Amino acid sequence: MKYELYYWDGIQGRGEYVRLALEEAGADYRDVARGSGGMDKMLRLMGRGPTPSFAPPYLKAGKLMIGQTANILLYLGDRLDLAPKSDAGRLWTHQLQLTIADLVVEIHDTHHPIGSGLYYEDQKPEAKRRAADFLQSRAPKFLGYFDDVLKANRAGKGKHLVGGRISTADLSLFQIVAGLRYAFPKAMRRLEKQYPRVVAVHDAVAVRPRIAAYLASPRRIPFNEEGIFRHYPELDRK
Amino acid sequence: MKYELYYWDGIQGRGEYVRLALEEAGADYRDVARGSGGMDKMLRLMGRGPTPSFAPPYLKAGKLMIGQTANILLYLGDRLDLAPKSDAGRLWTHQLQLTIADLVVEIHDTHHPIGSGLYYEDQKPEAKRRAADFLQSRAPKFLGYFDDVLKANRAGKGKHLVGGRISTADLSLFQIVAGLRYAFPKAMRRLEKQYPRVVAVHDAVAVRPRIAAYLASPRRIPFNEEGIFRHYPELDRK
Repeated sequence: MKYELYYWDGIQGRGEYVRLALEEAGADYRDVARGSGGMDKMLRLMGRGPTPSFAPPYLKAGKLMIGQTANILLYLGDRLDLAPKSDAGRLWTHQLQLTIADLVVEIHDTHHPIGSGLYYEDQKPEAKRRAADFLQSRAPKFLGYFDDVLKANRAGKGKHLVGGRISTADLSLFQIVAGLRYAFPKAMRRLEKQYPRVVAVHDAVAVRPRIAAYLASPRRIPFNEEGIFRHYPELDRK
Repeated sequence: MKYELYYWDGIQGRGEYVRLALEEAGADYRDVARGSGGMDKMLRLMGRGPTPSFAPPYLKAGKLMIGQTANILLYLGDRLDLAPKSDAGRLWTHQLQLTIADLVVEIHDTHHPIGSGLYYEDQKPEAKRRAADFLQSRAPKFLGYFDDVLKANRAGKGKHLVGGRISTADLSLFQIVAGLRYAFPKAMRRLEKQYPRVVAVHDAVAVRPRIAAYLASPRRIPFNEEGIFRHYPELDRK
């Protein structure tokens, strides 16, 4: 199957969790908005068809058009062998994926606590308060949760959240660590020491041959200040 | 199957989307935390077992313990006949459910834009800004999206988001309208005129026999200022 991914050009954003799954599986896909006329094509499709999306990313897979990042990964997990086959295993993987999605919202809101349609510059004092609370309370709570899950999953041998194999959840947790390192380098130096199992998953994913090749390719868009993970030094730990 | 729902006593919160599904289906369930010693039992289970939850709600179904509201509804949609049987229909229902989950986060953050662990009183100026942006920009975008979905779904005859039958998505959209009416009565009077199809789903769900009986029962916890939808007049439209 040839997949078409529709996501904003120029940022990793939520599209990146889908890209990582497609890349790890060696899937045949096109990142439509990054091609000629692709952004127009993406915007024309938004809100259209029998299953319109509220926002990108959306994935075309044969006759299906699937929206919502975690929903796309639920679908791809089955098709690309990036999730267990059992109902219990699929639900657990999806539960982890949805918890990562919650974390992504909170990371986004560190720089946009008042309104996603407003400029960062227009919500900077609020962003400072929210980022401080995130680094103090929320990041430890989330990273601690995933660290506990990894500790309890002996079959994963420190590399996998779910059983003994790679899943979309591992790939997404890799992206969380990479992104937090970019956005909050000072805070992360401290957090990484407290949650070494989370860092170990990041490191194990980064050296997977297809992921390593992807990360070194121009297909991997660099982090920047338009995406979810933004490096604003004033929001990082002092 | 007898289900056990674990969620904070005293609030509707995210547990309510699960309760509505269980009630509509006439499922045999226990709202554990509302019984004697139930809160202790819930807290003991959090973070335990092979599929620990980051936060309530979680649902015990036979040997499964399922976390994340949308994940629970994905599971129950299949078992309680509250979602289509086809893969395409299930994915579409779940996509809508995840978009409702995104909206729920934004509604929560109108009164907690800085930190979910801080008091409302400690983030009131920020809450005023965020609530104003929500009512001005975000609520119309979300409600307009669901209104468009309803307009396009002719099979739903104005009552259903997915095909011609009730689904978890309809039940959840009911809760959104009921909650927004409670939290922002002035703003909603205006919004309801613009998105009448969304209101029609609310009204159709409210008169379903099992839902009407549930809403009139002590099992339905009243809205209050501890939940997701809080009525703080200063956050409503002037």
